[in-house]
Amino acid sequence: MSIHFEPIGSVHTKARTLPRHWSVSDVEGELILDEAYHKGLEGMEPGDRIVVLFHFHESPSFSLTSLMQRPPHGDQGKKGVFCTCSPHRPNALGFSIVTVLELTATSIRVRGIDMRDGTPILDIKPDVRPS
Amino acid sequence: MSIHFEPIGSVHTKARTLPRHWSVSDVEGELILDEAYHKGLEGMEPGDRIVVLFHFHESPSFSLTSLMQRPPHGDQGKKGVFCTCSPHRPNALGFSIVTVLELTATSIRVRGIDMRDGTPILDIKPDVRPS
Repeated sequence: MSIHFEPIGSVHTKARTLPRHWSVSDVEGELILDEAYHKGLEGMEPGDRIVVLFHFHESPSFSLTSLMQRPPHGDQGKKGVFCTCSPHRPNALGFSIVTVLELTATSIRVRGIDMRDGTPILDIKPDVRPS
Repeated sequence: MSIHFEPIGSVHTKARTLPRHWSVSDVEGELILDEAYHKGLEGMEPGDRIVVLFHFHESPSFSLTSLMQRPPHGDQGKKGVFCTCSPHRPNALGFSIVTVLELTATSIRVRGIDMRDGTPILDIKPDVRPS
């Protein structure tokens, strides 16, 4: 079974180097949605935390020889890929939580970017946590 | 640009009714990964919180007339789909955070299920939060 998705927009950032993870990122950038989807942002406000699901579009094809990987940070040994945030995974799906700074007519300005410029966005959801 | 993913496994639960969201779910179930991917779980332990990305495989095709939706809970009006957790979205991608209870040779037993039995799993990641 193959599942098909189409990007709804893309990530734009001028940062030349990116932090390793959204949880330690102060990098700002824009999420630019295709015009057809703008109405889907209604109700979003500055200060909201949002989940961005995206495609690791520059990752090479995955092979089963990469199921164990050594995370680039920390002094641990190899781990199963599902215990890492590696962009090199069976399905090249990424997930970051960012903070909305500003909504314009064409984009969402956010803080917390750890994606490369041009990354295709697949979905945006509210960051709902147990109260 | 169309992006293709293949399921790495599926969700199994005997629950006949499901809570509306993982953040309020005590439902237990199993994540059964295809055997080829078992090695990718190495390092996972009971008590870990994991992010499960999955396909809302029973959602109907999305049409742009559904960009505004009324959440089934709460007394709010319609909202943009990207401000809701609706399974009916441009890309039928779901995201839940569950707690690992037990790892067996063939599956991960978890608590926090809000997915239907048989849901295709696309990815599993650690739930990394700012410290």
